[in-house]
Amino acid sequence: MNMLIQVQDNVLCRYGITRVLENGNSMEKAAVNVSIIHGHLSEARAKAMSSRGRNVEVGSEYFAGALSIVFHPCNPYVPTFRSDVRYFEVKDFGWFGGGADLTPNYLDEDDARYFHTFLKEICDKFDPDFYQRSKSACDSYFYLPARKEHRGIGGIFFDDLESFTVDDHKSENSIMVKEKYKSERAQVFEFVCQLAKGFLPSYLPIVKRKRDLPYGDRERQWQLLRRGRYLEFNLLYDRGVKFGLDGGRIESIMVSAPPLIAWKYNVVPEIGSPEAQMIETLSCPRIWV
Amino acid sequence: MNMLIQVQDNVLCRYGITRVLENGNSMEKAAVNVSIIHGHLSEARAKAMSSRGRNVEVGSEYFAGALSIVFHPCNPYVPTFRSDVRYFEVKDFGWFGGGADLTPNYLDEDDARYFHTFLKEICDKFDPDFYQRSKSACDSYFYLPARKEHRGIGGIFFDDLESFTVDDHKSENSIMVKEKYKSERAQVFEFVCQLAKGFLPSYLPIVKRKRDLPYGDRERQWQLLRRGRYLEFNLLYDRGVKFGLDGGRIESIMVSAPPLIAWKYNVVPEIGSPEAQMIETLSCPRIWV
Repeated sequence: MNMLIQVQDNVLCRYGITRVLENGNSMEKAAVNVSIIHGHLSEARAKAMSSRGRNVEVGSEYFAGALSIVFHPCNPYVPTFRSDVRYFEVKDFGWFGGGADLTPNYLDEDDARYFHTFLKEICDKFDPDFYQRSKSACDSYFYLPARKEHRGIGGIFFDDLESFTVDDHKSENSIMVKEKYKSERAQVFEFVCQLAKGFLPSYLPIVKRKRDLPYGDRERQWQLLRRGRYLEFNLLYDRGVKFGLDGGRIESIMVSAPPLIAWKYNVVPEIGSPEAQMIETLSCPRIWV
Repeated sequence: MNMLIQVQDNVLCRYGITRVLENGNSMEKAAVNVSIIHGHLSEARAKAMSSRGRNVEVGSEYFAGALSIVFHPCNPYVPTFRSDVRYFEVKDFGWFGGGADLTPNYLDEDDARYFHTFLKEICDKFDPDFYQRSKSACDSYFYLPARKEHRGIGGIFFDDLESFTVDDHKSENSIMVKEKYKSERAQVFEFVCQLAKGFLPSYLPIVKRKRDLPYGDRERQWQLLRRGRYLEFNLLYDRGVKFGLDGGRIESIMVSAPPLIAWKYNVVPEIGSPEAQMIETLSCPRIWV
């Protein structure tokens, strides 16, 4: 566990708790991060936010709070799970982001349907269009262009879910789904809380069903290779990692890395194999519910 | 082996050979890449070059050729080795880059001195100041700011070694050593050839001396963790990887990844241990020759 309160350039207060389980019975690695940061926007952060349509100035005071979870299971038949909720406030604006997604090594359509149905039910109570938009945003975000592969079978991903709207600001530059709820703050906050409470029940039934399935060296090797894609995404494309690297605590950022990863040259699964089926599924997002 | 000739947007011709050895007796993974590319500068590439002081326009015709080598040894006492030579030509400019560096898991001062002395002798024949400048550039380049660690014990790294100078162009933006040799093209080319011929003799004696040293699980685990830093650098900071990802062949780019890597949370070696000594050495570059 790490608890950290520190002061540095641009940061008025940084507070975080990271808890990690390593070599568990079901989980080879599991981690939960809570981080709170209050400071002034650095040039890099202001630039990144402006490029996404937020008119913010270098030096503006901001507050950010996030809860994130990652599970890297032992059994190759159990998918990797990642989720987070986050809140960002700068000057008079405040908005929520978050999401949850599944990264299997082997496709199980029942798992995919269960997971997406579970998330959709939470979303539907908030807004009947929300699942579809945040599902598409998830598919767009967790994508490795150089591999022409989506990272997993998706879930939901949202950003810029505003809890109160002070002004209009351009959003054309962003690839993210933009939600401009002019509703009461309480309604948005309630949705984010319900989502966070849903993280474990969306995933644990899948773990329980598969954690004791027998597997061999072939499945283990495939899991280690697929974890390589997971890390490629995190280090090459993930916005949270880039945000964190700008002055954040590296061990809390890299805690999302899988515990053991292999890279082999040019592995192409045999046509018709379960491994090939997985790759094919990752090439084009599917509708699960 | 991969041989590839393809045509895509902005690319007139791309040709490459990648050869990989996996699970060898001394090398867990070893790879050699030759790549030749001829095309028009994409926006991303033109921008990257302009930010380094090159006044190039989007769409300019360019030619790039590179040879790169990486060795990931089995034995944790044998350091990882990486080297390359490259040539870039755009419009009327042409320049060479390259380098070689060593990433040990355990410090051996004799290895470090041997390696640096070998490289210095090649450099000295070209220019008596070249080793010092390219050694400093190597220390600056292979650095992980978030870890406050240099990747290894360095070597040499150079860029912008011009074989003919057509015009002056600003170089203030670059952190790289800038060499403006107004000498004959032949002299620069001869140096680059001598350097490439020196890659194997700079490294193989170190491999031979240590590949049969006994080691246990502790040393293997440390090796797997240190390889994590190697990959963090490649994906987060390496310019060659970024250049390659802009339309390059991903398997040839990722061939530099170590074969097996571990991430554990917040590993801090015991004070006074060989692992702690290595970390201490990586915090501040040393003079080896």
